Amino acid sequence: MADKEDNIKRLKTIEGHIRGVQRMIGDDIYCIDVIRQINAIQSALNKISINILDSHLNSCLISAVRGDDIDEREKVLREIVDVFEAATKV
Amino acid sequence: MADKEDNIKRLKTIEGHIRGVQRMIGDDIYCIDVIRQINAIQSALNKISINILDSHLNSCLISAVRGDDIDEREKVLREIVDVFEAATKV
Amino acid sequence: MADKEDNIKRLKTIEGHIRGVQRMIGDDIYCIDVIRQINAIQSALNKISINILDSHLNSCLISAVRGDDIDEREKVLREIVDVFEAATKV
Amino acid sequence: MADKEDNIKRLKTIEGHIRGVQRMIGDDIYCIDVIRQINAIQSALNKISINILDSHLNSCLISAVRGDDIDEREKVLREIVDVFEAATKV
Repeated sequence: MADKEDNIKRLKTIEGHIRGVQRMIGDDIYCIDVIRQINAIQSALNKISINILDSHLNSCLISAVRGDDIDEREKVLREIVDVFEAATKV
Repeated sequence: MADKEDNIKRLKTIEGHIRGVQRMIGDDIYCIDVIRQINAIQSALNKISINILDSHLNSCLISAVRGDDIDEREKVLREIVDVFEAATKV
Repeated sequence: MADKEDNIKRLKTIEGHIRGVQRMIGDDIYCIDVIRQINAIQSALNKISINILDSHLNSCLISAVRGDDIDEREKVLREIVDVFEAATKV
Repeated sequence: MADKEDNIKRLKTIEGHIRGVQRMIGDDIYCIDVIRQINAIQSALNKISINILDSHLNSCLISAVRGDDIDEREKVLREIVDVFEAATKV
């Protein structure tokens, strides 16, 4: 599946980015620049979460909502609220 | 509907909280304490967004996913991803 | 002080915005539009926190860092880290 | 410096965590569980940003605030506000 490969590729890029941050810290690069790179990595991870959520809604959620298993449906809807809550807790 | 009344009540409480922060600023209360109160208000608002999302998933989304209007279904699913993205953009 | 008045004015605008959201909920406006308005209010509050942090750094923090009271200095620096942590906890 | 080694060690752990998420995606693990793992990685990265900010405040910031270079001081204070803003933009 295209999305799957795309997300794995993005994660490999992030891995390289994280090794870059290790080198920055090892080389005593200015703290604020390191924090900015970490921020960029967090954004890149966020993009992957959003991609996964998108495909989840368009597959598992549709099946669960159309299916007859009320417990399963409630579980799937509850999880989306939980994920939103976990991602946004201020 | 209970949820609706509950959310309006929470917003009234937040209104009072915001007036409190205005007084804090007017009275030159220590900056960090003001920031903490604003942070608490943001959390309280987040709780309302989560409540609304929860009831949205359990009503509009279920109807849209079970309905025959593909455009409507895609719109509803897309909006959830957008809301998640808007709420989490780092 | 200009900043102080500006922040109080912004909070008054936010109060009006929150009353608007109460009306939206009372009038059964579409959930996603309500969530978007709450999101806008959170951004507006964030802007105020940033303004306050900015003036805090340029006044209290400078005094504390230049002063001789080590405990006070450590407290002020610790608070900034705490505020950052509270605002960003994922 | 202990902090430096600690942060590099944390980043190595995160690298392993990211490879784990790649495997989860490759193995078609349930979407929500993948999102939760990504969320955990973002928290771990946040912890590193906080550590770096903490040592930055206790070194560079102190020097800049005590120094005579006004431009440098303003730059350092501005960066902290910017980092806060970048990390919290809702």
